[in-house]
Amino acid sequence: MEVVQQGTQIRFDNHVHFHKIQAWIQDSRPYANLGKCANYIPALERANPSQLGICIIGSDGTMVKTGDFDTAFTLQSISKVIGFIAACIDYGISYVLERVDVEPTGDAFNSIIRLEVHKPGRPFNPMINAGAITVASLLGRRNSVEKVESICLLIDRMVGRHPIINEEVFQSEWQTAHRNRALAYYLKEMGFLDCSVEEAIEVYLKQCSIEVTTEDVAMIGLVLANDGYHPIRKEQIFSKEVARLTKALMVTCGMYNASGKFAASVGIPAKSGVSGGILAVIPPRARSDDSPFMDGCGIGVYGPAIDEFGNSVAGVMLLQQISREWDFNIF
Amino acid sequence: MEVVQQGTQIRFDNHVHFHKIQAWIQDSRPYANLGKCANYIPALERANPSQLGICIIGSDGTMVKTGDFDTAFTLQSISKVIGFIAACIDYGISYVLERVDVEPTGDAFNSIIRLEVHKPGRPFNPMINAGAITVASLLGRRNSVEKVESICLLIDRMVGRHPIINEEVFQSEWQTAHRNRALAYYLKEMGFLDCSVEEAIEVYLKQCSIEVTTEDVAMIGLVLANDGYHPIRKEQIFSKEVARLTKALMVTCGMYNASGKFAASVGIPAKSGVSGGILAVIPPRARSDDSPFMDGCGIGVYGPAIDEFGNSVAGVMLLQQISREWDFNIF
Amino acid sequence: MEVVQQGTQIRFDNHVHFHKIQAWIQDSRPYANLGKCANYIPALERANPSQLGICIIGSDGTMVKTGDFDTAFTLQSISKVIGFIAACIDYGISYVLERVDVEPTGDAFNSIIRLEVHKPGRPFNPMINAGAITVASLLGRRNSVEKVESICLLIDRMVGRHPIINEEVFQSEWQTAHRNRALAYYLKEMGFLDCSVEEAIEVYLKQCSIEVTTEDVAMIGLVLANDGYHPIRKEQIFSKEVARLTKALMVTCGMYNASGKFAASVGIPAKSGVSGGILAVIPPRARSDDSPFMDGCGIGVYGPAIDEFGNSVAGVMLLQQISREWDFNIF
Amino acid sequence: MEVVQQGTQIRFDNHVHFHKIQAWIQDSRPYANLGKCANYIPALERANPSQLGICIIGSDGTMVKTGDFDTAFTLQSISKVIGFIAACIDYGISYVLERVDVEPTGDAFNSIIRLEVHKPGRPFNPMINAGAITVASLLGRRNSVEKVESICLLIDRMVGRHPIINEEVFQSEWQTAHRNRALAYYLKEMGFLDCSVEEAIEVYLKQCSIEVTTEDVAMIGLVLANDGYHPIRKEQIFSKEVARLTKALMVTCGMYNASGKFAASVGIPAKSGVSGGILAVIPPRARSDDSPFMDGCGIGVYGPAIDEFGNSVAGVMLLQQISREWDFNIF
Repeated sequence: MEVVQQGTQIRFDNHVHFHKIQAWIQDSRPYANLGKCANYIPALERANPSQLGICIIGSDGTMVKTGDFDTAFTLQSISKVIGFIAACIDYGISYVLERVDVEPTGDAFNSIIRLEVHKPGRPFNPMINAGAITVASLLGRRNSVEKVESICLLIDRMVGRHPIINEEVFQSEWQTAHRNRALAYYLKEMGFLDCSVEEAIEVYLKQCSIEVTTEDVAMIGLVLANDGYHPIRKEQIFSKEVARLTKALMVTCGMYNASGKFAASVGIPAKSGVSGGILAVIPPRARSDDSPFMDGCGIGVYGPAIDEFGNSVAGVMLLQQISREWDFNIF
Repeated sequence: MEVVQQGTQIRFDNHVHFHKIQAWIQDSRPYANLGKCANYIPALERANPSQLGICIIGSDGTMVKTGDFDTAFTLQSISKVIGFIAACIDYGISYVLERVDVEPTGDAFNSIIRLEVHKPGRPFNPMINAGAITVASLLGRRNSVEKVESICLLIDRMVGRHPIINEEVFQSEWQTAHRNRALAYYLKEMGFLDCSVEEAIEVYLKQCSIEVTTEDVAMIGLVLANDGYHPIRKEQIFSKEVARLTKALMVTCGMYNASGKFAASVGIPAKSGVSGGILAVIPPRARSDDSPFMDGCGIGVYGPAIDEFGNSVAGVMLLQQISREWDFNIF
Repeated sequence: MEVVQQGTQIRFDNHVHFHKIQAWIQDSRPYANLGKCANYIPALERANPSQLGICIIGSDGTMVKTGDFDTAFTLQSISKVIGFIAACIDYGISYVLERVDVEPTGDAFNSIIRLEVHKPGRPFNPMINAGAITVASLLGRRNSVEKVESICLLIDRMVGRHPIINEEVFQSEWQTAHRNRALAYYLKEMGFLDCSVEEAIEVYLKQCSIEVTTEDVAMIGLVLANDGYHPIRKEQIFSKEVARLTKALMVTCGMYNASGKFAASVGIPAKSGVSGGILAVIPPRARSDDSPFMDGCGIGVYGPAIDEFGNSVAGVMLLQQISREWDFNIF
Repeated sequence: MEVVQQGTQIRFDNHVHFHKIQAWIQDSRPYANLGKCANYIPALERANPSQLGICIIGSDGTMVKTGDFDTAFTLQSISKVIGFIAACIDYGISYVLERVDVEPTGDAFNSIIRLEVHKPGRPFNPMINAGAITVASLLGRRNSVEKVESICLLIDRMVGRHPIINEEVFQSEWQTAHRNRALAYYLKEMGFLDCSVEEAIEVYLKQCSIEVTTEDVAMIGLVLANDGYHPIRKEQIFSKEVARLTKALMVTCGMYNASGKFAASVGIPAKSGVSGGILAVIPPRARSDDSPFMDGCGIGVYGPAIDEFGNSVAGVMLLQQISREWDFNIF
């Protein structure tokens, strides 16, 4: 079974790896009971907490998909990775890093304390809300439409279709974004926003509301695994420097306040969202000889029951098992 | 020129790589002017700030040493890595992680705030003083002598000789350790210390005062690069799990409050000390085809002029250049 | 020279006390050089930093005015006192204290940290911005016009005329209120605001922009000195309980982060604003036998050069001298 | 019934006021059920939580004692007031205030955070542990014995007998003082301690272990009420300036993190200890005409069941009732 995509071939793997992944999904699914769906907006609360799906796409086009792989979900914080890359493409790494640092914090994703204590100082990193809103304010040139479009276009180049924004999710986020507005007004006062607060919030919430499936996420991961090069479309989408920096950020700050624990126990660059999605990236590796995807792969996971940190409980368990069994740990 | 060590061979490289490294040392040395030697105790203040030396040992025994590679210096915070491994060997990972978390903080290495705000809670990670003192209290069984010995023995197994403790440095540290005693009494009150405050402080300060050269540090890095296996002594010194966990910690928390920046710009597991030493680890890698040390290597760097974060200024510049030129970045 | 006001008499004192105050103003005026006018909006920056004026009104109607007593200025943070009293009149003390605590903090007036660290928790007191915005959201019943009017009406009852809002100041505040909006959105998320963020901010900034003179402020102080009773209009405007509570708040939190120092060195209930105004209250006292205003008095001070804490430098010096010479210290 | 003390007369009041106080004690005693005795050391835990006693001594020598007025208890944090006065007597107010500020904090009494965030900076006030330990390090001249003696002598001058130190309490405190040692080492590092950490801790814990009764505490309060003058011994023990400053501190910082609430609801200078004691001071007042103690009085209260803030629950209720009924509120 084959799918022609952009002149290159995705080949579905229905055999050994597929069955292993299927088994591991069965192992991990019960952990969903330890979490629950985000409930601050109706669309997230309605998700089925027992769902768990995965898509893996290797650098050679091999694709493994199983479980609830085709449920649509919104990017939420995974969009922080895309926004950061888009800003680096548009303005260069050094311009972006003048506005946002790349240090992990140990604070909650929506914390405002550090901005006050370390004042004057840039937001600590683009994977927390303060940093992501700052990055959103940089994007594009003129207005919020163009800013959001710069993210959608980047996704299009990686995924092969223009993503849509889930309008219901966006409207709900917009109406409950008090804490994000607090952060944004704080950033505005400190001079970090390149546009109005309302515009930055609109861009940030729209990028969070972009709808994807695990396959879209895996494809984004694949490009990162290949240092910005799209092995299926055969196109360099962003530079190796941007890719490496982004993966470093995912390791140190990608899994909210469990980033250190995830690095210690799973050991792969990843970014999670409160919708239950996880973007994971496996760079090519030298050590293992009998495991698949030696040339690297991208992984998309979806499991909407999240833990206290905001990460998919079953999704993390699944990635931990895959990493251990196939030696995906980069350290 | 060859050195027989434990029946295996270290071969000095005096050619291409050696000359490249020599040139890069010349490039990096001027950056030392941007830092200065730690001055809280006389022994550190007396160091020559313009020194810069490096030793690299590959998994195949190839060794490159140049610059001020043979200056003796004290481990300082690099000892946190050894202490953590020693505790994991003695008690198992899960026992240790019940007493110390593995999350980066963004706070100063000697900060006490987070212990109060997140109370009750373990120290955030073993690479900050609060975590390292907690780990020191676990070591060995009965008393401070035995605890220090458990670290020295581990170093002996990796380096091939029993290290000595610089008594002058220890005495100076002991007399000025007010802040560390404050941390330790706080930890004692919270029930995290397995021994008396004075004993934990003695162990911690003695491990900081262990004297090494860049070659010793490179050898420690080599064992970590090989997941706990010593490729020269041909011995598994600690488990792959401990090695991977330690390297993950070095990436997220190893370079003080510049850990995120170091991961973003250099991209290798590393741990620095205020003496100007840096322990760096290059795991085997798949991607590069014309650079050396494809099977991994350990690196020891010494450059006593440190920056505001506590990291060797010239040492970081040197590692950045090596990482870029030889594609050592793990992401 | 006499002024008939609401059937009662204000008598100007042009003699002994007047000349003493005149001399003390001369002593205090040079201290203005140690401060400078608030400069975050043009209207405040334009003030003449060397001005210093005072009006004292005793419970028997004796009035002493000298220096730049008739310069108009905006209430700024002094309005927090009026807003708090208005809310207590409308809703009762216990209703208000469920929404705002009465503890001093030691933090900056516009700090957001404590809201996050002590979450869930009410704003610490109504004399910091977070508390004052919360109080502003309670006022009146239906809309921002009515809320502002409830403050203006209370001032009218104490001062004898309906105050006007300085529109230029309000517009400037409105456009630069990023930090206050950050606070208000934070409070909104925590459920402490009884109206929309924009409405609460509008009310708060309008109350800050109310224009007064030292005589108006002294009259407000006089009512507080008499436990809510207006000795000239002969009317109980608010209860003794509200007056006592308000004066306690002024002592513990009224002078920004120098409240403790002001209590220690001056010892009278007072509230300052960044416009350089100070409202001070002298309750009746038993101890002194040869000083004036034994039955209490209200004091209005104006001196626009403020210190790092936000208090009028010369104004504080003047009050310190008066308190010492006439034994106004309540402790 | 009369007691001759230092040539002056204490007269017991057995009539109207006595019976009122007796009734109010009955009203307040049940509130003890809402608290519990401090349990960090055995001696405090053994206290009878239902006890409640009071002693009031007026400036004219009138004494009212009822309830469990003669139970001995240790000063604990009440000693912070005595230590502060002793340091001001020995070194002058300005010397002391260079080492400790007089600002309330809103933080826990044993908090260490503010020392780090506001570094470099003095401890915020002498009523929190950090400030009290700093003050203890100043006392006397040469050693810990002399430092403790300077406090005991001051108590002797006010109370008429040399107080004893409860050795059991001191030993228990000494062994569990981890948090205080953490604070002291922090202060040492910052250069605020005038002696060794162990010496400062010994002095501080010994002053906390001084044993008193409500009558002793009332006598101390009486001297403060009279601005440093002892109306019975007819002696000026410390200056009016020191007395006023101390009373201001008691109002802004004396009742732990409920100081603001106590000022708002009771309105008198007071200092509590975790043993359940409260020192309260009523300055002479002008307003009331039919209540007793118009010339001021000192009050000692004992009720060992304390609330979450560390204040005697029943004791605070009793003082609130007395203040309301007899209009003791100073505001």
